[in-house]
Amino acid sequence: MKIIFDTDPGIDDAMALAYLGAQPQAELLALTTVFGNGGVDITTRNALYLTQRFGIHVPVYRGAHTPLVLPAPTPAPHVHGYDGLGDIGALDGFEGAPQATFAPQRIVELIREYPGEVTLLAVGPLTNLALALDLDPEITGLVKEVVIMGGAFGWGPRRGNVSPVAEANIINDPHAADKVLTANWPVRAVGLDVTTQCILSTAAARELGRTAGETGQFLFDISRGYEKLYTERDGFAGCAMHDVAAAIAVFEPQLFGYARGTLRAVTEGIAIGQTILKEDGRSFPPGPWDNLPVQAVCRDVDAEGVLAHYHTILSAHYGGLKAAV
Amino acid sequence: MKIIFDTDPGIDDAMALAYLGAQPQAELLALTTVFGNGGVDITTRNALYLTQRFGIHVPVYRGAHTPLVLPAPTPAPHVHGYDGLGDIGALDGFEGAPQATFAPQRIVELIREYPGEVTLLAVGPLTNLALALDLDPEITGLVKEVVIMGGAFGWGPRRGNVSPVAEANIINDPHAADKVLTANWPVRAVGLDVTTQCILSTAAARELGRTAGETGQFLFDISRGYEKLYTERDGFAGCAMHDVAAAIAVFEPQLFGYARGTLRAVTEGIAIGQTILKEDGRSFPPGPWDNLPVQAVCRDVDAEGVLAHYHTILSAHYGGLKAAV
Repeated sequence: MKIIFDTDPGIDDAMALAYLGAQPQAELLALTTVFGNGGVDITTRNALYLTQRFGIHVPVYRGAHTPLVLPAPTPAPHVHGYDGLGDIGALDGFEGAPQATFAPQRIVELIREYPGEVTLLAVGPLTNLALALDLDPEITGLVKEVVIMGGAFGWGPRRGNVSPVAEANIINDPHAADKVLTANWPVRAVGLDVTTQCILSTAAARELGRTAGETGQFLFDISRGYEKLYTERDGFAGCAMHDVAAAIAVFEPQLFGYARGTLRAVTEGIAIGQTILKEDGRSFPPGPWDNLPVQAVCRDVDAEGVLAHYHTILSAHYGGLKAAV
Repeated sequence: MKIIFDTDPGIDDAMALAYLGAQPQAELLALTTVFGNGGVDITTRNALYLTQRFGIHVPVYRGAHTPLVLPAPTPAPHVHGYDGLGDIGALDGFEGAPQATFAPQRIVELIREYPGEVTLLAVGPLTNLALALDLDPEITGLVKEVVIMGGAFGWGPRRGNVSPVAEANIINDPHAADKVLTANWPVRAVGLDVTTQCILSTAAARELGRTAGETGQFLFDISRGYEKLYTERDGFAGCAMHDVAAAIAVFEPQLFGYARGTLRAVTEGIAIGQTILKEDGRSFPPGPWDNLPVQAVCRDVDAEGVLAHYHTILSAHYGGLKAAV
């Protein structure tokens, strides 16, 4: 399974990358970075650091540093830390340089190189994907699938995490999101409706540290502040595995239940950053939901299955345990 | 219980008015009309006709004919009929004239006359209430409660009925709705989350015709096309009692479960007409949900209880049966 991982590490991005490095079915073609959980200089440095630290051999391409239209979002270091990886000093003295090609350009090149084979897994703002669509609109017919962590579609008890209706990745570039969600390629959206059910408890994180080697311990260490925020602010008993859920959805789609319909992102007003699904089978007066490709949205999740799968894959690869899958 | 009923009859408005006329606790001070299910000339004529037909002695005041900012909505005669009452010819030859005072002015006068006593029950676009707030902002401190049928807050399996997120009364004047929802008076919103659960089945409508006298039979007759639309378009096994649910919420609040928080209506973009609740206890970065009065929104409903109560009240009053309440 050929994957381009578009990412803004970020703590749950790091957890997702560790999974992709351990997943035997994954052939990682490239990491493409984007602003989001930090500025793109920070997220690129983290991507380089994490690939080295996890022993993943994959080139890293630097991508967009601002949204398509809006100004760059206000930094939120209270979530992922000033260094984007929990401020535990892991990156002290680390130096690394990304590839020379601009990430959206490289996305186009790789899709062209492997027509019909590439899955775009995007877990940050969708700016790089929107820029790739601008560079070469024909890639829509050449991509295998676009799996995103993004949005909040309103089934869960919680909706947005930045506003009552807006999820962070979408509100950080709603214009890019609207382009990506309405493009004529197959999108599967993994939003807060399901990711907020995939909670890594303190005990499970500690167990990962015990069974998944030095990588498991590292993930435990960087996620302490992140977990504390979720516990205190949102009442989760652990930390939400947003990006991990999207990564696992690529390989284990049956762990999720889906709704289908046309999708839009709101680009202005107080609902900015909201994702809206017009479900198939519902009819409304003519509107901005018409004549768009039908996409898939995760509505349900077997959260225990997701967590067990994550544990199994990481422990097998990083801890030397035999995978039970 | 002193009530001003702001209404745009409309079939479910007629059902709600029949209830208010039969509810022994209700003291109807005025009917104020607004565009919505038809133009205001149509809805005013219907209000006059219905009060006469149901034997309800209450003055009718004509209100707004267009939204505050937007152009008048496109007529939708496929829902309530060209005459707003199911096109069964009931109004043929009917003549009537409303009171001379403009409805928003009369709303202000009545609130001033009975400080702390008046419940505003509004089941159409909220234009008259917004205009009353403009005329006299101090009425916010003098109203007992504002109960509206409007909005879709996202708990139910369905959200909007005009767009995936917008309910008709709100999208028909979102600027008025935003004023009313954010004003410093106590609002209780009865939205699609609960009203789409209150379904009058064909059998129940026929039974009403049998037990609630000529009025019950009339409500059965006018609602045949309305029921057909709901059944065919939305898969309901009957017709949704939107405005009835709001009217019953005034007198039987315990039939509903509530969420509390600050409310906004979206006035632009593809989410126009959406209502958004920021629930108490959830925290977000500073935004347009801050420093607003906390309102109540119906989250759950005892739909069987609502339907049984409706049947009991109408049968007792119009059918001469003894009420079991």
